[in-house]
Amino acid sequence: MTQVFNFSSGPAMLPADVLRQAQEELCDWNGLGTSVMEISHRGKAFIEVAEQAEKDLRDLLHIPQNYKVLFCHGGGRGQFAAVPLNLAGSAGVADYVDGGYWAESAAKEAQKYLTPNVIDACTTVDGLRAIKPMSEWQLTKGAAYLHYCPNETIDGIAIDETPAFGDDVTVVADYSSTILSSPLDVSRFGVIYAGAQKNIGPAGLTLVIVREDLLGKANIACPSILDYTVLAKNDSMFNTPPTFAWYLAGLVFKWLKAKGGVAAMDKINQQKAELLYGVIDNSDFYRNSVAAANRSRMNVPFQLADSALDAVFLEESFAAGLHALKGHRVVGGMRASIYNAMPLEGVRALTDFMQDFERRHG
Amino acid sequence: MTQVFNFSSGPAMLPADVLRQAQEELCDWNGLGTSVMEISHRGKAFIEVAEQAEKDLRDLLHIPQNYKVLFCHGGGRGQFAAVPLNLAGSAGVADYVDGGYWAESAAKEAQKYLTPNVIDACTTVDGLRAIKPMSEWQLTKGAAYLHYCPNETIDGIAIDETPAFGDDVTVVADYSSTILSSPLDVSRFGVIYAGAQKNIGPAGLTLVIVREDLLGKANIACPSILDYTVLAKNDSMFNTPPTFAWYLAGLVFKWLKAKGGVAAMDKINQQKAELLYGVIDNSDFYRNSVAAANRSRMNVPFQLADSALDAVFLEESFAAGLHALKGHRVVGGMRASIYNAMPLEGVRALTDFMQDFERRHG
Repeated sequence: MTQVFNFSSGPAMLPADVLRQAQEELCDWNGLGTSVMEISHRGKAFIEVAEQAEKDLRDLLHIPQNYKVLFCHGGGRGQFAAVPLNLAGSAGVADYVDGGYWAESAAKEAQKYLTPNVIDACTTVDGLRAIKPMSEWQLTKGAAYLHYCPNETIDGIAIDETPAFGDDVTVVADYSSTILSSPLDVSRFGVIYAGAQKNIGPAGLTLVIVREDLLGKANIACPSILDYTVLAKNDSMFNTPPTFAWYLAGLVFKWLKAKGGVAAMDKINQQKAELLYGVIDNSDFYRNSVAAANRSRMNVPFQLADSALDAVFLEESFAAGLHALKGHRVVGGMRASIYNAMPLEGVRALTDFMQDFERRHG
Repeated sequence: MTQVFNFSSGPAMLPADVLRQAQEELCDWNGLGTSVMEISHRGKAFIEVAEQAEKDLRDLLHIPQNYKVLFCHGGGRGQFAAVPLNLAGSAGVADYVDGGYWAESAAKEAQKYLTPNVIDACTTVDGLRAIKPMSEWQLTKGAAYLHYCPNETIDGIAIDETPAFGDDVTVVADYSSTILSSPLDVSRFGVIYAGAQKNIGPAGLTLVIVREDLLGKANIACPSILDYTVLAKNDSMFNTPPTFAWYLAGLVFKWLKAKGGVAAMDKINQQKAELLYGVIDNSDFYRNSVAAANRSRMNVPFQLADSALDAVFLEESFAAGLHALKGHRVVGGMRASIYNAMPLEGVRALTDFMQDFERRHG
């Protein structure tokens, strides 16, 4: 069988070693004779898994002591509600930087709880999609926080610079698609959250990293399962957490550490992105319409000059073991999601295929 | 190695056949060369899994056409908030039957959104814990709904009769620990919900079965991920669902069908419960303090007459492959959770051990 490389945007590829370990011990974990997904979240055995996962994540991201790490239900969209419900306080307004589909969706959900001041950060530079410089972002005085999404999976647009507007501005970031892919200074954020299904583990788990001084302010209408304070007080076990997803996330964190941590991933991710964008840029057959400074290293959308070839491209790439390359319906074309779990040889297999396809159809 | 029987209250034992299948295909599902947890929830392959799981559940419970089935994030506790957020309307009050820990917790969460009229249904009959007859439940006129929990996992108390107060009373039930264990007339309920981690699959998935005429009334403050209307409109894919848990639930539904469905499980569950309660009742060494009419067939708490032997009992039972028998800290003693996945021979292994333990220590 052809080796398969899966470019799905999420749920996405997991490290092959992690899946193999999970498979080996699925029915008999830790010599218990049961699966890790069959044991109590409150028992000693699972609590060790949970604590180790948190410790490894703290090591990987150098999370300061004054931040809580929460393992939650509800996905990124759950956090679109949780953020205003936990942080709005009496401000009544928060700044939402709109750099694409997900940032916009977050602002829309926030409308239920406050008035989002939507900062349209999209622009074009030389005909390419780009993000306006932060100096042009018009912040609201007295806003509860500034929300942004550093990586837009659909548009393939990234904001790599961390917002810096002084200590008065609490920065909240949706890191769902880019967490653990490059170094990150947690201390510059109030809240970082991330759905697991791209760089962390399977869908159904959400990570929240929250600065302690932001706790204790939840709206009375905040469901307990989204209340950071309740979750923090109960070590994310106020209700039964998604234990199997937590365990898998723990395996991914261990795998990342063994690979050299976030700095090492950063280097590989850079190589992967350079290789793929290089092939796109050195061809008139493929194009990507994002300005270089805002190109995502996680999600690379690209169009074929002749969209009539899209179906053939998808059929042939699938047959070559290159899966899930169809672009999001909003932008069309192709998209290769190349999260941490995608090895360099996967991107090489893709670029080899792309060049061969171009030779045959160009 | 000794065969292990796992009496955990949840996350709980899954059918051994289901786990074995999941293990076999964990790294290469459906000949795709990827795991089912690595593929898009919006792709054809996963949508088939999702639809088949819903169809099988509909078959198993004979769910009428005018009910939607939702596969959600957030667990049972998420539903403690979702129920009032979706159903309260302008009523401002709902009836909450308090039969134990979970029913009480649901009422407490509901306080955020309405005034729960808590109906204390607990009583004692001949010194045994029992539930008051429904004729004594004092319902509120104009209440939005009546909420109850037909099976209390901690207390081992069940309400087997379905509330019948006429068509004006919308009945909402937390079936987390008893769904699919015995026949159920869905048409008598407005909403049935269930966390997956007892009779359905792994933690992190929640089922909601909701009558269509109850949709469209969600409170403006309801987070979208808990909004039944939003979820129904999007076939539970408003956000990325917990796909692996959904797939596993589907395998459990198939397994149930192959076993003869809910009627067959009902019979086996009856045998299991009779065997275990029989051994308890025929002994002065063990006791259960729930009246016969309200004894749970899913969770059987029992005490040793001499609690000084608790630690030895737990140690020896674990060594015999009988896991997770420690009772909840609130009631102490032991608890055997014997959901659908627990075979009769597991309960027999437990009762054999209990009788042997009594001979040696009685």
